[in-house]
Amino acid sequence: MKAEILTIGDEILIGQIVNTNSVWMAQELNAIGISVVHIASVSDQAEAIEKALDAASTRADIVFITGGLGPTKDDITKKVLAQYFNAPLVINEAVLADVTAFFTKRGREVGELNRMQALVPGRCEVIRNLNGTAPGMWLTKNGVSFISMPGVPYEMKAMMSDSILPRIKTHYQLPFIYHKTVLTQGIGESNLAGLIESWEDGLAAKQIKLAYLPQPGLVRLRLSTWGADEALLRANVDAAIEALLPLAEKYIYGYELYGQATPSLAQIIVGHLKDRKETVALAESCTGGYIASLFTSIAGVSEVFKGGVIPYTNTMKQRLLNVSATTLDTTGAVSKACVLEMAKNTLRCFDSDYALAISGIAGPGGGTDEKPVGTVWIAVASAHKELAMHFQFGDNRERNIQMSALTALNMLRKFILKHK
Amino acid sequence: MKAEILTIGDEILIGQIVNTNSVWMAQELNAIGISVVHIASVSDQAEAIEKALDAASTRADIVFITGGLGPTKDDITKKVLAQYFNAPLVINEAVLADVTAFFTKRGREVGELNRMQALVPGRCEVIRNLNGTAPGMWLTKNGVSFISMPGVPYEMKAMMSDSILPRIKTHYQLPFIYHKTVLTQGIGESNLAGLIESWEDGLAAKQIKLAYLPQPGLVRLRLSTWGADEALLRANVDAAIEALLPLAEKYIYGYELYGQATPSLAQIIVGHLKDRKETVALAESCTGGYIASLFTSIAGVSEVFKGGVIPYTNTMKQRLLNVSATTLDTTGAVSKACVLEMAKNTLRCFDSDYALAISGIAGPGGGTDEKPVGTVWIAVASAHKELAMHFQFGDNRERNIQMSALTALNMLRKFILKHK
Repeated sequence: MKAEILTIGDEILIGQIVNTNSVWMAQELNAIGISVVHIASVSDQAEAIEKALDAASTRADIVFITGGLGPTKDDITKKVLAQYFNAPLVINEAVLADVTAFFTKRGREVGELNRMQALVPGRCEVIRNLNGTAPGMWLTKNGVSFISMPGVPYEMKAMMSDSILPRIKTHYQLPFIYHKTVLTQGIGESNLAGLIESWEDGLAAKQIKLAYLPQPGLVRLRLSTWGADEALLRANVDAAIEALLPLAEKYIYGYELYGQATPSLAQIIVGHLKDRKETVALAESCTGGYIASLFTSIAGVSEVFKGGVIPYTNTMKQRLLNVSATTLDTTGAVSKACVLEMAKNTLRCFDSDYALAISGIAGPGGGTDEKPVGTVWIAVASAHKELAMHFQFGDNRERNIQMSALTALNMLRKFILKHK
Repeated sequence: MKAEILTIGDEILIGQIVNTNSVWMAQELNAIGISVVHIASVSDQAEAIEKALDAASTRADIVFITGGLGPTKDDITKKVLAQYFNAPLVINEAVLADVTAFFTKRGREVGELNRMQALVPGRCEVIRNLNGTAPGMWLTKNGVSFISMPGVPYEMKAMMSDSILPRIKTHYQLPFIYHKTVLTQGIGESNLAGLIESWEDGLAAKQIKLAYLPQPGLVRLRLSTWGADEALLRANVDAAIEALLPLAEKYIYGYELYGQATPSLAQIIVGHLKDRKETVALAESCTGGYIASLFTSIAGVSEVFKGGVIPYTNTMKQRLLNVSATTLDTTGAVSKACVLEMAKNTLRCFDSDYALAISGIAGPGGGTDEKPVGTVWIAVASAHKELAMHFQFGDNRERNIQMSALTALNMLRKFILKHK
């Protein structure tokens, strides 16, 4: 079954709000085996809405419409639907009761504008809205279902979860769609594609679709398949991932499981540290607190994260972390010797099981011929072992900070896993 | 002039990523007087892309396409464009040179897949991509312009800002639109609307349109007007803002000027510090490096930012910042006494002109009846003065970190400006 999502309202077209409703609906629909084939946003204008409804009906079996149901003059979705479906607006007593109850509960009078919310196209099936005043409407034309909902996210989500999705699952025979996403770091999209080409060529025969989803510093590989036998689909995808490991295991840091959020590298590390009852601390120069903020955005991180220092000057590297003047004078702050001293002293100062230290030239200034912008040294240390590596990233400050952070986190992750 | 934005790729249709590219493009296009009439997302399938191009050409004068330009097999945009515009793919030597330079600079070989990135439809005008390997392509059919760009946000944004928007402004006669945006912090959207209601009511008579652009912790007020006489438009908007000051000055931290990026609170502070040749250092507990990362994302910040500490445990507050055991035992880490000690010791340790310290309960755990989740103390100190304030935010960790950071930065900004 194919679906289209149609958002009505100027606020998306002028870039005032992000279309998070569509993301949520797309996730929910895919999860029950409905393919979203098209997402569109149009303005609050009758002609634009009518054309969009026409176009949607050529592509989809079911069209999810949000927005344009407010009581104010700029909201015209209901009027357009009444005309499009040739079903004049009539007062629906059940909706009127809901609207009245909504206001009574809040100790307010029902105004005329709000009473009009109970007007719906004559032929429509009403979907109750327990969180607001605009009802949902389910209409049909030439075998295509059109479901109109308010644009307020929590009203829409409640209507979808409580009424619409359960009804769709009951009424339609849906295929089962299964996705699993492999998370990689340390290799670019095209190099990864070259590395796994032969494996990728074999996926089609297994009815598995592969998508590369690059983000700055990461590439996610999404494997999708669909059919009737859920266990078989899962087994097929798991077998395909098993076959991928010999080619790319060193870049794989985790998996995104079906219907769950993508775990971040920091989340994966926090998980390992909690399992092992170990702790980490940071010394960040060029990433300037960014890695710390990735850790501290995670609820419950204080169990395993002891904190960090951001010694942004040479003086502060000496004062906070006892980096020796000799090191700074001879090899400089962006060097193997400096990050190793930073890591070892952080370990001592914070009394943590692991320390991560990073020093580099994020740019745009500060580069030299010998150490151009993008030069980064990263060290990881424990009481028993230490490791420092050199990286050469690009010339964009923001990207260099991000690449440095992800690379450092993946180094830390591997270091922890190798650690007895 | 009317524009359409078309996003190609399954990742939006399955709800894996939020379509932030469209929001950014819609903002940029509206800002130069181009109306976005339609936004669509389609899958990586030739037929869907071709139909979307057809439909777009009936609605828009210029179509902005992102996505599907990666080197991997699932990306087919370029092939479809070559066919749609009847312009077979040819190697473009300038692009090949860019791609080669991109890899050489990173010390990597150009693989065959990457060399293919230099293939473009014969008739297209190439838009250089200095941040990646997929070039932009500008094609024309029946008077409609189609501009295809990579979906990676920072590559697309750089191409739009550096090449495409300047070219559009030169080649087309666009109405003159003047925007000025007032940046506020410390008051929510609806309270702000109540506060400035009478002022807002008077804007229509001056042909000024007001938009509230709320972000977590901030509200931007965009004043827009258009016409032929640029000087008059500027004067009108400036007069309106002058009239706003008596009502809301205490919440205003800056302005976004026409055609410029929104300055962040951290950028505004860095500007003040550079002017005054002064420095700052941080002690972040509950914000955990987030404020430092806001500072260190700014190029050239090392002139004024000496660094920070993230003492995430009580022990580390004592060890790194000499917070007294008595304070921690009697008033706790989230207290006026603690943040004042943190700020004063940070000032001393970093030898900076200002220090900002913050301690709070971000949640979801750690709250008590006396100090519920969302309790935050912030202190600012200089050699001559110190100030601590208490705030009560909500129960969402991410929001609490963001609100704390913005509130702390605004406190620091006011403190610096009052400082002799």
